Amino acid sequence: MKVIVIGSGNLAWNLIEIFEQNPNIQLIQVFSRNAESLKTLSCSCPTTTNWEELSEADLYLLAVSDRAIISLGEKAQNKGLWAHCSGSVDLRDLPATIRRGVFYPLQSFTKGRKSSFSDLPIGIEAENEEDYQQLEGLASSLSKTVFRMDSSQRRIMHLAAVFINNFSNHMIARAQDIATEAGIDAELLYPLLDETLAKAKAMGAEQAQTGPARRADQATLDAHLDLLKTKDEKKLYQAISQSITAYYQKDKNLKKG
Amino acid sequence: MKVIVIGSGNLAWNLIEIFEQNPNIQLIQVFSRNAESLKTLSCSCPTTTNWEELSEADLYLLAVSDRAIISLGEKAQNKGLWAHCSGSVDLRDLPATIRRGVFYPLQSFTKGRKSSFSDLPIGIEAENEEDYQQLEGLASSLSKTVFRMDSSQRRIMHLAAVFINNFSNHMIARAQDIATEAGIDAELLYPLLDETLAKAKAMGAEQAQTGPARRADQATLDAHLDLLKTKDEKKLYQAISQSITAYYQKDKNLKKG
Repeated sequence: MKVIVIGSGNLAWNLIEIFEQNPNIQLIQVFSRNAESLKTLSCSCPTTTNWEELSEADLYLLAVSDRAIISLGEKAQNKGLWAHCSGSVDLRDLPATIRRGVFYPLQSFTKGRKSSFSDLPIGIEAENEEDYQQLEGLASSLSKTVFRMDSSQRRIMHLAAVFINNFSNHMIARAQDIATEAGIDAELLYPLLDETLAKAKAMGAEQAQTGPARRADQATLDAHLDLLKTKDEKKLYQAISQSITAYYQKDKNLKKG
Repeated sequence: MKVIVIGSGNLAWNLIEIFEQNPNIQLIQVFSRNAESLKTLSCSCPTTTNWEELSEADLYLLAVSDRAIISLGEKAQNKGLWAHCSGSVDLRDLPATIRRGVFYPLQSFTKGRKSSFSDLPIGIEAENEEDYQQLEGLASSLSKTVFRMDSSQRRIMHLAAVFINNFSNHMIARAQDIATEAGIDAELLYPLLDETLAKAKAMGAEQAQTGPARRADQATLDAHLDLLKTKDEKKLYQAISQSITAYYQKDKNLKKG
């Protein structure tokens, strides 16, 4: 299958790395509007910043920002299959004049950090069965977890992904800051972090919850608020603690009711 | 070393499991006020619910709630070393009439789920060097990460632990709920969860942050708020997104300034 990757960011970098290793995929070109960013890619295929130079391919993969998907989609011509990789853009946000699909790898990608694709869930959507098969074939040659997912399910999956990745990551960032600012090695927290994840997967995070907010232990909550230095940190601490307390209170009420 | 564990909850259960395997530790008794909970422990040593029956030991480990530490500490007699295991109780909250110390394993424990102690950071505090050595000897026979930590540092460590464990876990709980309520298998999120953790450790979570709040992508933030069903969920989503956006905005301002 002849594939063109459109984009040169975190996802494009990772797709190119994995495509070039895969004998089933013929990466024939990479397009990006950003010449500097194109140079950071290590692909052996031709690259271009000129939309007019886009080659003929079976599949054009839009590995760009949501906004760029819309604007580049509008410029897409009626040749080959066009698939975007976003969790939040609808299939129908691409113009109806082209063959359109979605290839959504559920991962947080970083340029320079190779992601493993073998267990990576990839959600596929297309308007007709033939296009679906084509995308599924590509996905299955990379990962053993490929599934059909329409745009509305994908939006929900993306929302869940924001909680599990973006929001958890921010909690880790705050914890690393709190330790580091107090002169404590943040790595001392990592066994706890590993166990947090292992427990949440093994028991379900609802059951695994511990801590002062879960116990509604106001004395410790107040002591922690006193320790936090900025308004910003206090606000965050309070919002999440209230959310935890309400979550288990609600649960209790439901059980009572 | 003759040790008595006071408590029968998540931490006590784990301490008893590990102590009984360790030839350096002689677990001679377990005390708990809760007879039912005592039965859930699998210790081969005598147990009691009667404070008057407490044996003579080198070390009394208070593996109980913060409130119980204070009230049991007041009943402690002047024999042996008394150490509590809490992140938020000060050494000086135990009465000055006893030899007092702290043995703080930085982990989230669950009864029935054996924690590994070998890499577990254990923070030690005591009033005199002899007592410190005694606690350090115990900790070192369980873990290779034992360090001196005073009450004020321990409070900060506990605060950081709340962010990295309690708060992250709540984000995972919400993500699992969002997926499950939409009929999506929450396990599809786990490769993303694994990578979140691996990236946060490898790059630092501040650098690893991605997502709509990081990009201040208001269209996606609004779309997610629309998808969330309850006021409670919307409030949480908004509070954390604002925190992320402000965190990187601040950073930008600092870099500018």
